[in-house]
Amino acid sequence: MKVSVVRNILEANERIAAQNKELFDENGIFVVNLMSSPGAGKTSLLERTIDALKAEMGIGVIEGDIQSSRDAERVAQKGVPAVQINTGGACHLDGNMIRETFSEFDFRDLDLLVVENVGNLVCPAEFKVGEDLKVMILSVAEGDDKPSKYPLMFHESGVLLINKTDLLPYVDCSVQKIRDDALKINPAMRIFEVSCKTGEGLEGWFNWVRNEVKGKKGHV
Amino acid sequence: MKVSVVRNILEANERIAAQNKELFDENGIFVVNLMSSPGAGKTSLLERTIDALKAEMGIGVIEGDIQSSRDAERVAQKGVPAVQINTGGACHLDGNMIRETFSEFDFRDLDLLVVENVGNLVCPAEFKVGEDLKVMILSVAEGDDKPSKYPLMFHESGVLLINKTDLLPYVDCSVQKIRDDALKINPAMRIFEVSCKTGEGLEGWFNWVRNEVKGKKGHV
Repeated sequence: MKVSVVRNILEANERIAAQNKELFDENGIFVVNLMSSPGAGKTSLLERTIDALKAEMGIGVIEGDIQSSRDAERVAQKGVPAVQINTGGACHLDGNMIRETFSEFDFRDLDLLVVENVGNLVCPAEFKVGEDLKVMILSVAEGDDKPSKYPLMFHESGVLLINKTDLLPYVDCSVQKIRDDALKINPAMRIFEVSCKTGEGLEGWFNWVRNEVKGKKGHV
Repeated sequence: MKVSVVRNILEANERIAAQNKELFDENGIFVVNLMSSPGAGKTSLLERTIDALKAEMGIGVIEGDIQSSRDAERVAQKGVPAVQINTGGACHLDGNMIRETFSEFDFRDLDLLVVENVGNLVCPAEFKVGEDLKVMILSVAEGDDKPSKYPLMFHESGVLLINKTDLLPYVDCSVQKIRDDALKINPAMRIFEVSCKTGEGLEGWFNWVRNEVKGKKGHV
């Protein structure tokens, strides 16, 4: 019984997410669903990405948090449209929540839309929002056993950013083990090692975004 | 409709958790439901706590993970009974999962039972498992905005351990801000600043556990 209820919710969400994606596709907007544990660096990555790319493309952000509008305020300071969703307790974003924000954007101005999910390494992996791709961040402070403990998130994400590499001298974490275990779960995963604090390694990520945005525009 | 389904699940869980607690109470076992984000240090705290206290009390551990038995193996190496629950995708432990482990323990040998929940700062806060108290860990690497963004977890937890204080020189995190914001949400919260890596600050936590275990025994 419980299983069938959950399945119905997931199926209903898939339909709405597919409608969202159709709308994004029509407008040539590349959409990223950005996920991580709390405090792994999603908003910091966004700030860095906006600084690097906003001169060359139109960027919009949807911020998902259980409560507070702190992240949307951080992003809005960077001069791009940002909409805060407060889930009011819910542990992930879903397609319907994203649809509710559409009136806040002018899609003609957007090339890249980043949806920052609720900080949670479990539930968001199950719910599409209309994205082209799921991108996940793992902080090295979380340790190198995370792929084996949270495999679905690694399975569903097309890109893994291993963040806070500036902390590597001070934590017990093997980046090689993260890479090996993540690629066992998802051999096609693209992996970047970055520090959103120092900026190290981010150029590869920026170039990846540039390429994807260009590719999506080419298909409109 | 969706709301009422969720409420039924929560109510059913409350009943089972209450039955679990009755059994723990009869046996004078102090039960902690230990929660945090992935990689904040739950298992490291457990290892330290077992090392410090196993000579003076009977300790048992239930490890909750979506997948893998790594944590139960780490704990079992410390010489205490440890049972691994694999939730198979579920993002939190519930009362029924805990009940399923009862045949693995001899309750007469236990004074302290620690239930290490799935790494998740959201969903576990809603589900009792039969505990006397919820205890949460926050790593300073997660940042000082977590109380305002994940308020339910801070509201439900009787104790907050601020962990990885050895990383404070290398991260942007104000422990004072965490303290202030956590106490605004939950004025009765007991807070310890610790480093499970260096051991600093743990003596206060150990003494707190000693007192609680003694208090629980006194009520049998």
